[in-house]
Amino acid sequence: MSAKTKPLQKAAVVGAGVIGAGWAARLLWNGVAVTVFDPAPDAARKTREVCAAADIAMEKLTSAPAPKRGALSFAKTAAEAAAGAEWIIESVPENLARKQSAYSEMEKTAEEGALISSSTSGILPSQLQKEMRFPGRMLVAHPFNPVYLLPLVEIVCGEKTDAKEAERAAEYCRFLGMRPLLVRGETPAFIADRILESAWREALWLVKEGAATTAEIDDAIRYGFGIRWAQMGMFETYRAGGGEGGMRQFLAQFAPALKWDWSKLTNTPEMDGELIERIAKQSDEQSGGMSARELERIRDGNLAAVLRALRARDCAAGKTLAEYEKRLHYSAPAQTPGANALVPTLSRTVLEEWTDHNGHMNESRYLECFSEASDELMRLIGADFCYIRGGHSYFTAETHICHSDEARAGERVCANTQVLSAGKKLHLFHRLYSEENGKPARPLATGEHLLLHVDMQTRRACEPSAEVLQKGTALADGHARLPRPAESGRKVGDKPEKKKTSESKNKNNRGD
Amino acid sequence: MSAKTKPLQKAAVVGAGVIGAGWAARLLWNGVAVTVFDPAPDAARKTREVCAAADIAMEKLTSAPAPKRGALSFAKTAAEAAAGAEWIIESVPENLARKQSAYSEMEKTAEEGALISSSTSGILPSQLQKEMRFPGRMLVAHPFNPVYLLPLVEIVCGEKTDAKEAERAAEYCRFLGMRPLLVRGETPAFIADRILESAWREALWLVKEGAATTAEIDDAIRYGFGIRWAQMGMFETYRAGGGEGGMRQFLAQFAPALKWDWSKLTNTPEMDGELIERIAKQSDEQSGGMSARELERIRDGNLAAVLRALRARDCAAGKTLAEYEKRLHYSAPAQTPGANALVPTLSRTVLEEWTDHNGHMNESRYLECFSEASDELMRLIGADFCYIRGGHSYFTAETHICHSDEARAGERVCANTQVLSAGKKLHLFHRLYSEENGKPARPLATGEHLLLHVDMQTRRACEPSAEVLQKGTALADGHARLPRPAESGRKVGDKPEKKKTSESKNKNNRGD
Repeated sequence: MSAKTKPLQKAAVVGAGVIGAGWAARLLWNGVAVTVFDPAPDAARKTREVCAAADIAMEKLTSAPAPKRGALSFAKTAAEAAAGAEWIIESVPENLARKQSAYSEMEKTAEEGALISSSTSGILPSQLQKEMRFPGRMLVAHPFNPVYLLPLVEIVCGEKTDAKEAERAAEYCRFLGMRPLLVRGETPAFIADRILESAWREALWLVKEGAATTAEIDDAIRYGFGIRWAQMGMFETYRAGGGEGGMRQFLAQFAPALKWDWSKLTNTPEMDGELIERIAKQSDEQSGGMSARELERIRDGNLAAVLRALRARDCAAGKTLAEYEKRLHYSAPAQTPGANALVPTLSRTVLEEWTDHNGHMNESRYLECFSEASDELMRLIGADFCYIRGGHSYFTAETHICHSDEARAGERVCANTQVLSAGKKLHLFHRLYSEENGKPARPLATGEHLLLHVDMQTRRACEPSAEVLQKGTALADGHARLPRPAESGRKVGDKPEKKKTSESKNKNNRGD
Repeated sequence: MSAKTKPLQKAAVVGAGVIGAGWAARLLWNGVAVTVFDPAPDAARKTREVCAAADIAMEKLTSAPAPKRGALSFAKTAAEAAAGAEWIIESVPENLARKQSAYSEMEKTAEEGALISSSTSGILPSQLQKEMRFPGRMLVAHPFNPVYLLPLVEIVCGEKTDAKEAERAAEYCRFLGMRPLLVRGETPAFIADRILESAWREALWLVKEGAATTAEIDDAIRYGFGIRWAQMGMFETYRAGGGEGGMRQFLAQFAPALKWDWSKLTNTPEMDGELIERIAKQSDEQSGGMSARELERIRDGNLAAVLRALRARDCAAGKTLAEYEKRLHYSAPAQTPGANALVPTLSRTVLEEWTDHNGHMNESRYLECFSEASDELMRLIGADFCYIRGGHSYFTAETHICHSDEARAGERVCANTQVLSAGKKLHLFHRLYSEENGKPARPLATGEHLLLHVDMQTRRACEPSAEVLQKGTALADGHARLPRPAESGRKVGDKPEKKKTSESKNKNNRGD
């Protein structure tokens, strides 16, 4: 597909429940005109609500330029909706007869070249297409709620489906930012819902037995393996966790557990040599390009990124992490730094996800590093988490960053800080370096920052506490004996005063 | 637990496979001394490798101050390891006899007050503790791989376990940044592994039937419901997706599916009124404080955040998103902006996760906004993704940000851009505002940026293409007729030239 083509102009959605309306929202966001039919009296309202939710979600998901929204209209019958559409999506309730009658309606007006898909979670396409006049253009395209956010679509062909229609459906899905998964045969519930259904049935047993409540089951998922499954499925996860023995060893080790009473699914496949071989071979094909160590590294990086994303939202496992970090902050030793030397305020790794399209750490992450360095300096002068909770903090008023070199993912960086002045205004100068053997090496950037001490209630400037003032001033007095940084007091575009040395030897007396 | 206490000084780990070594790594990172016993000859090497992986992962997870690492030592027997430990963790293979013999060894030297826990995935604690001399201090604490990252620990008491030991184990877990889940009774495989085991058995059937390969099953999980399960479990997800009818309607609607052949788990509980009522009531308790709309909003925000985290890593569903965004960028209309007016370069929502401990958008996110605005300006002058892929780009050399107001999560913000000069050096001035009715309202910050045109191979400055030069210069020439921004050409701490107006009327001729 070329970058500029728009393979799809007009679609129809028949059945506008959560799934149908989700399809409509995804199509509209991508600039496709959609006609919806649903007999429910409030279908238009509900569809518009889902579209509004999708707009909000897409704003959160991406800052890529949004296409011009498609036009939304409502039809009075499935036949009316289907007329003129290139793709007709059926999302009526899971009932074979109702679905078949919807197709019969659609086929009255559908253009010859129109694709017809069902969103069914598990009814076989061969059954669905049985009575159709043109079954060749019918298949299952099974999405996952919320359709406007989750990428997976299972594409399942029936006996009569024309193979090229599957490729066409996949192309439509890719155009919508989705991930088509071509299912290789017709099995009730396909792939994902086979897994989901068994997990659901097991969960119902847990509730019925009184072994766990719904909340406990949900927590058992989202604080544990659910986080793994957001980025690797079960086979690759087990391979990564299986250590050096690989999948064969893992399977051999856990085969006996298939006979234990660890699940209500007691009809288990015989874990014979053939099945072990098949799984091991498929797993080799899937992940064999990487060692267990590499898989582990990727998994850990992903898990950390997902956990940090949730922490920033203070949700689920992210809440646990946020509380933990608070404790780490509170219990970190609060030694006062020596006043005559630069204060080490940062030592960390550049994350893979900080890389931008230029192949280096994005500029905003330099400021993230400096922001962390400022937080650490604040902590050291007593303006820590407790202080902020007590109603006071420093807010940044101005920032000046001078870049001198690039930083790459995986590289260790460190920063030290010179306090240029302290008090109601806190004037900081950070230097960011690559770190080698725990020491600053290649200079990467400098950050000059002016912070104002504020009352968190009024959000206005005020004097800091005596302790914060005293500790800050002690540092500023000590650091006044150090050379004034050449990059400080400069405006954008100024050349450094001396090319060869990064420090000005003349103490600059500019008051802050 | 008070903020500064350290409830645990010394632990023992008996059995250092993936789980035992993971425990050791988590304990050590948190400053706890750990003695490990494992009879395998390479146990020490493997443990150290897991600890090294954990160190890397923790660096990626958090920038909170790390405690001083605990000391790691190795013992020659389980008894030697157990001596002096406050918490003795058994992680030997899933074999009742082997586990019991490990406890018998431990109890030879364990201190009277020591807690003994098993990491078993499913053997009942009542069985495990049966032969122990002091079974009251024994329970199951079941973690999830990788133990150093995933927070969940299932705490399960046996018949003889002293109830206060469960609270103690939970406190230890919380100290380690984990999320203890007290399991209410003894069921084989507890909660999480009941779900996992049924899903695993179903997946084995899928492979055996030839319905899907391991890679396809993994994709069916990680591009779809796996992302949901990273933040909500199945009950709350279904409630959020169930729409206005709530859990009762959802259950009634999907009860018939329990009889369908959608899973090999055909022994399903009767979905009678009592079970529906129980689930609906538990779900109300769990999520009833929020409407379906609110749950949906939280879910969508979480999903978007997880997807963005994965996109930044170019992994799993994040890869799909990255490809999609590339297409959106390529296919966005490339109209050239009028040269006589400021160029709109940003319009977006402040994400919840951009909020810092001061309760407003963190400073680094201001630069993220400006970075996005610079990218858009670059796109408009022809220095777009294609241009970068062709081997040239602009790198930021200097940045000066002046803050004038706070931005809050959920607020819409927008930016416009004045090109102060163009060419090999691109001098941009962004103004960030809160957005109201699609128009700039309250000024939030300004960003002055100096970018250098570079050759992506040599990473050195070079001249831009004729098209980029021409388009950039046209904008700069047009914008030279606009007032020079008062905040440009300023150094940190300078007062704006005029207090009442944010623009200087005198055109500043400073060359760039």
